[in-house]
Amino acid sequence: MNHSELKAKMIDAGKVLVAEGQDDFTRGHISARLHDDPKLFFMKPHSMGLDEITMDNILTIDLEGRVVAGTARRHSEVYIHSEIFKARPAVQCVLHTHPPYSIALSSTNRPLKCFNQGGALFHGSLGRYSDTINLIRTHAMGAGVASALASHRAVLLKNHGIVVTAPTIEELVVSTLMLEEAARIQLIAEAAGNCSPEFPAEDIKQLQHDIGQPEQFLINYNYLVRRLGQRK
Amino acid sequence: MNHSELKAKMIDAGKVLVAEGQDDFTRGHISARLHDDPKLFFMKPHSMGLDEITMDNILTIDLEGRVVAGTARRHSEVYIHSEIFKARPAVQCVLHTHPPYSIALSSTNRPLKCFNQGGALFHGSLGRYSDTINLIRTHAMGAGVASALASHRAVLLKNHGIVVTAPTIEELVVSTLMLEEAARIQLIAEAAGNCSPEFPAEDIKQLQHDIGQPEQFLINYNYLVRRLGQRK
Amino acid sequence: MNHSELKAKMIDAGKVLVAEGQDDFTRGHISARLHDDPKLFFMKPHSMGLDEITMDNILTIDLEGRVVAGTARRHSEVYIHSEIFKARPAVQCVLHTHPPYSIALSSTNRPLKCFNQGGALFHGSLGRYSDTINLIRTHAMGAGVASALASHRAVLLKNHGIVVTAPTIEELVVSTLMLEEAARIQLIAEAAGNCSPEFPAEDIKQLQHDIGQPEQFLINYNYLVRRLGQRK
Amino acid sequence: MNHSELKAKMIDAGKVLVAEGQDDFTRGHISARLHDDPKLFFMKPHSMGLDEITMDNILTIDLEGRVVAGTARRHSEVYIHSEIFKARPAVQCVLHTHPPYSIALSSTNRPLKCFNQGGALFHGSLGRYSDTINLIRTHAMGAGVASALASHRAVLLKNHGIVVTAPTIEELVVSTLMLEEAARIQLIAEAAGNCSPEFPAEDIKQLQHDIGQPEQFLINYNYLVRRLGQRK
Repeated sequence: MNHSELKAKMIDAGKVLVAEGQDDFTRGHISARLHDDPKLFFMKPHSMGLDEITMDNILTIDLEGRVVAGTARRHSEVYIHSEIFKARPAVQCVLHTHPPYSIALSSTNRPLKCFNQGGALFHGSLGRYSDTINLIRTHAMGAGVASALASHRAVLLKNHGIVVTAPTIEELVVSTLMLEEAARIQLIAEAAGNCSPEFPAEDIKQLQHDIGQPEQFLINYNYLVRRLGQRK
Repeated sequence: MNHSELKAKMIDAGKVLVAEGQDDFTRGHISARLHDDPKLFFMKPHSMGLDEITMDNILTIDLEGRVVAGTARRHSEVYIHSEIFKARPAVQCVLHTHPPYSIALSSTNRPLKCFNQGGALFHGSLGRYSDTINLIRTHAMGAGVASALASHRAVLLKNHGIVVTAPTIEELVVSTLMLEEAARIQLIAEAAGNCSPEFPAEDIKQLQHDIGQPEQFLINYNYLVRRLGQRK
Repeated sequence: MNHSELKAKMIDAGKVLVAEGQDDFTRGHISARLHDDPKLFFMKPHSMGLDEITMDNILTIDLEGRVVAGTARRHSEVYIHSEIFKARPAVQCVLHTHPPYSIALSSTNRPLKCFNQGGALFHGSLGRYSDTINLIRTHAMGAGVASALASHRAVLLKNHGIVVTAPTIEELVVSTLMLEEAARIQLIAEAAGNCSPEFPAEDIKQLQHDIGQPEQFLINYNYLVRRLGQRK
Repeated sequence: MNHSELKAKMIDAGKVLVAEGQDDFTRGHISARLHDDPKLFFMKPHSMGLDEITMDNILTIDLEGRVVAGTARRHSEVYIHSEIFKARPAVQCVLHTHPPYSIALSSTNRPLKCFNQGGALFHGSLGRYSDTINLIRTHAMGAGVASALASHRAVLLKNHGIVVTAPTIEELVVSTLMLEEAARIQLIAEAAGNCSPEFPAEDIKQLQHDIGQPEQFLINYNYLVRRLGQRK
């Protein structure tokens, strides 16, 4: 995948994320590491929605969070991305958004449960960052998020939002939507109460393996992109 | 109804189901037994949404889950369908989806209540499958779902989704939407609490009879199809 | 207002009700008494949505529920309308729908609270019908609903739906939407818990008077009709 | 900004507010103080939706609530605006709406929590008005609202709605949406229960400062206006 193809994928991804309810004004940002230069990543610029990314406004940024190409404004929370790319060489994409059910869950002492299949994807793979409610505007804070993420798929930023990582844009988008849906179903069930125990861990892990296959994310992402076209 | 007519009905049904919120990416599948060859059934293919079924991509499958016609990819959960068609000769159609309120209900120890009229349709006719959270990818697992379904209309797959059966596509679609709405109303009421007891069983059974008439499903399904047209 | 004008108003009202979420398949029906012949009323026919009423398919029905003009199928629940028109000479319009929050509230032992201004409209003016969950298919059952309605504005049919009455179509539609919104806000608050007491009855009654003025309903209804136009 | 520019901004703001769910029929009103004559303000007229403001129907009103220019009908609740403009010289814009989650929160004894970042904007800056559920139709009642508002950003009118103030239209609109989203996330979390404590006040105050910068509101408001264009 060359640079243009990667940027084109980020553009689609942003539109899918907004269509699927992950928008919060212009807040939220997506990034993707360059395949041929792993110390650089592309990132959505500040001041526009996730659905307003273009070939021209994507920034190229290094692992210290410095803009090396592009003229648009950089998100002050760039350090979420740079520090995770630094700490996790296998991570190729990072997303930060403010989805309501995930934030509500982060505001409780409740762990994410496997109350639906999507929850299994995050079983034992969801960190919690509780250092601050503030914007992640320094290297140190970004490192703190990376540390809370550890080797997990994603991290809940308490009273703030989520950070999701993935090896591909497709997995990034689909797993983000699955996290929010899992949180939603859990919170609906817990509001009614009298929840029944989750399945045993080995059962959940089998599902985590099966629904975590790369082609699963690809197939489902491509469907969402096709739906975008129908809405236009 | 010839094969083309049955396939056309599945195509419409898929679009109605997505328009009414039963989609979960490309997950979810619908099938219909061939009227003139009850050991075969038509089924939506893998890798596309319920709203993307076409005359060409529908598969023909036998009661062992083997594709006998069609070139598209088969859902690995085909055994939900084949085993139910095997165990329940009167069932003509099977649907598996992941609607959020039904899944939330399946995550509790609460039975489905008749808190609205739609709930009455499933009174004493809703099984529970609790063997696993995993995909139903073997004959044995499919048989387990069929066993939990027993002679009921539908079965909640704990922390996973629903399987609904019906003698017609129309009843399949409308009863599925009624199940989700019943679960939604119940969970809203139970979250607030202080619920009042349901009506006596004989009262509910009368309603179950009245709203379960074939023409009721036909009339309401046809309305949903007409609405699809207005949205296009 | 001549017969055509009244029918035209019912047609608009049905479209507004569906646009504002009061639909449940083809279930739900609206009726309006003839100004020049108060022993007859117009009523939406069976087998179509509230948004599918036309000049040609509206039925004319007498106070015994007999069709006196029109060829469409009559709703079997016609007796809700005929018995209320019989018992309440000042009522000019009747609506029966299945809105989810009102039904959820009817499933609890909770009275409707004045947690928003719309709730005040129904303060001391909301009956409860708890005879059966069944369809109201006999004169006696219709009379039971009329009796539970008494001199109130509306009645909750437990685990079933609502019946709202009004002197005009405008008031019928707007007050129905206000009832559902009041139930929604109440159930959201009660799910979180720790609700504070309502305002004193005399305070609520003043508001009930003020927001219950005929022109209030007219102004707000006309706005909803204008919005319909923008959506087309 | 001349008068026409200010009116144009109010027109856009009204459309954004409806698109983002702040409508309640024709209820709700927005006003803006004249930059060159601080004892006068522009205000949306009665009898139309927030999305129906035009250059011609905006009223000019003085601090006693008297119409000094314009022929449209004045909202009877004009005193919310006039009394706040009188009491708070720095306030340039006032909005009153009926958003459901904020009203639900006002119906509980719960303070607004900082369960998301938007909540921080209102930390220590959200009054409560509990004098009456009634319409604010007198100078004295308007003064009561202004008194409950005190030096805060906004005030919850118990069982009624919200009043939000701001130095700019942009901040008015964006902060209103942030208040409703904060209430929504809080009520979802509290319905599930077992909430964890908020971050310390000094942490929240830092965020309040950062997200309260004028350019933040401008950037996010402009995005919402661009989205309006895409929907047309």
